Amino acid sequence: MAEEVSNKQVLFQDFVTGFPKESDMVLSTGTIRLKVPEGSKAVLVKNLYLSCDPYMRIRMTKGAPDDFSPYIPGSPITGFGVAKVLNSGHPDFKEGDLIWGIIGWEDFTLISEPETVFKIKYTDVPLSYYTGILGMTGLTAYAGFYEVCTPKKGEYIFVSAASGAVGQLVGQFAKLSGCYVVGSAGSSEKVDLLKSKFGFDDAFNYKEEPDLNVALKRYFPEGIDIYFENVGGSMLDAVLANMRLHGRIVVCGMISQYNLEKPEGVHNLMYLITKRIQMKGFEVFDHFSSYPKFLEVTRQYVKEGKIVYVEDTVEGLESAPAALIGIFTGRNVGKQVVVVSHE
Amino acid sequence: MAEEVSNKQVLFQDFVTGFPKESDMVLSTGTIRLKVPEGSKAVLVKNLYLSCDPYMRIRMTKGAPDDFSPYIPGSPITGFGVAKVLNSGHPDFKEGDLIWGIIGWEDFTLISEPETVFKIKYTDVPLSYYTGILGMTGLTAYAGFYEVCTPKKGEYIFVSAASGAVGQLVGQFAKLSGCYVVGSAGSSEKVDLLKSKFGFDDAFNYKEEPDLNVALKRYFPEGIDIYFENVGGSMLDAVLANMRLHGRIVVCGMISQYNLEKPEGVHNLMYLITKRIQMKGFEVFDHFSSYPKFLEVTRQYVKEGKIVYVEDTVEGLESAPAALIGIFTGRNVGKQVVVVSHE
Repeated sequence: MAEEVSNKQVLFQDFVTGFPKESDMVLSTGTIRLKVPEGSKAVLVKNLYLSCDPYMRIRMTKGAPDDFSPYIPGSPITGFGVAKVLNSGHPDFKEGDLIWGIIGWEDFTLISEPETVFKIKYTDVPLSYYTGILGMTGLTAYAGFYEVCTPKKGEYIFVSAASGAVGQLVGQFAKLSGCYVVGSAGSSEKVDLLKSKFGFDDAFNYKEEPDLNVALKRYFPEGIDIYFENVGGSMLDAVLANMRLHGRIVVCGMISQYNLEKPEGVHNLMYLITKRIQMKGFEVFDHFSSYPKFLEVTRQYVKEGKIVYVEDTVEGLESAPAALIGIFTGRNVGKQVVVVSHE
Repeated sequence: MAEEVSNKQVLFQDFVTGFPKESDMVLSTGTIRLKVPEGSKAVLVKNLYLSCDPYMRIRMTKGAPDDFSPYIPGSPITGFGVAKVLNSGHPDFKEGDLIWGIIGWEDFTLISEPETVFKIKYTDVPLSYYTGILGMTGLTAYAGFYEVCTPKKGEYIFVSAASGAVGQLVGQFAKLSGCYVVGSAGSSEKVDLLKSKFGFDDAFNYKEEPDLNVALKRYFPEGIDIYFENVGGSMLDAVLANMRLHGRIVVCGMISQYNLEKPEGVHNLMYLITKRIQMKGFEVFDHFSSYPKFLEVTRQYVKEGKIVYVEDTVEGLESAPAALIGIFTGRNVGKQVVVVSHE
């Protein structure tokens, strides 16, 4: 039997109400054997890169709904990440394979259902990209924009939380589709990034706008055809008032609401009728079958430099709790990644 | 030139904020010639039946949006109705033809664009039915249910304002499609009607439910697949919490909100994401091309007694303002019709 080695972990402390804190997670060191149990089809992986994503806040709430199974107090946080197979009981995986999928926030994870992770075939891009642009985040932007919104050339697109991992990609897909795209973000640094680096036609800092309705009228005098919703609350109200006839809203996230005990009220839903708006909630899990097509398209864009990507990287599991909390205060610029190990 | 005859009219007084009153409309008697102007393609009709519909409140608001062009102070209220052609300058219409479409709340109306009205071909059903079940209301129920919601046999359907003109039909279409359907209404008389006459599987009086969320859990222990939204506000919040995965909400109306200066806030939109709900605003004007198919199906059901229909009828233009106000207090039972003349 293999020897036990030490396994540093980020454990979930207890269910959260309101804003999460670093102390809702705790560092701990356990042990793990670097072999899968005899006869099992599990794989044992060494974790390399972890992804910090807004939906993880939902899993910190007691009784989280449906697909967002709540974290278990005392067990490691889990999330998307990139890892290397050290030992495999599964015929599809062998030592040295790289994978991305749901892993634990720890040095090593025993994945009991390897069917749920993706094998990484292409390593001509940074491996960390599979936590984001070439992983769940990228597929979210791709499927949400192309498959839910069905954009047409020349349409007016608005993206909130636009400098975030999903938003920056939606904006670039929109430009590649011949659309006009404006993004909102929460700092002038992020607004600059949207315009100078990601090629948004325009962008604004929502914190500096006393009236979001007025701001949207300024950026969209003709109205909005597609809204890629990442924030919820008062921004959604302002958008509803500025949608065009037959507009489409894809509801990908509502990060402004996750930490509120009672979400803000949205008052302008009457516009759904008068403007015949379609509003559709969306989870990437329903679109995993599109992954191969998405990967082919997006990897090519990345290699050709037609899509750029910004990561905000911290080193070490010790830094992971603060990195996760940071995405709710907007501290990160671009995709928040935690490096567990570079190889 | 034809002689002028007297023309009783219900005039719109001035724009309304909050709840409309009978005094927002005023009876007046003008004159009209019973011939269309020389060389015009108009038709001159004698009005028979007028329809009172919730969307008319929207037209009483200054700056009503898009398709809901605001009423003009000092001019007659207009709405759907049934009329008889007295004189025609249009090749498609001749004296004696019956039509349904937008007419004035008056004895006689000069319709300047007769292309916008439908000629009534079948008179083997009560003529007043073309103000409702075989007119705009019926098409609203048909297109909203079949074309927007795409129901499947065995699905769970909830209809609010279910005894209203649209709701009673949606429920019957749902039963004819093999669905399970529950309706809400605002009196025990209406609840009885839903169960005994319209064949709803169950029904409840929302005014007697201290907690709508609890009520919906009782009637839909498995959750709701399709919600036909007629009311908005707190009912929508409760429904969102009780939808099933991939549920569909067709937003046909929000009558509880029309008379509020600021609509209620809806807090549960996060469920759009976690349950991948589609919410779609809908106006019957986009579905007029489905009218012939709808008429064929629905007229047959009516003649076979497979669909029943309840009208609440008042006599005379004098009674029209009170009848219209009544639909906002829920006074009517079934489709509210005003008889201007029986022939």
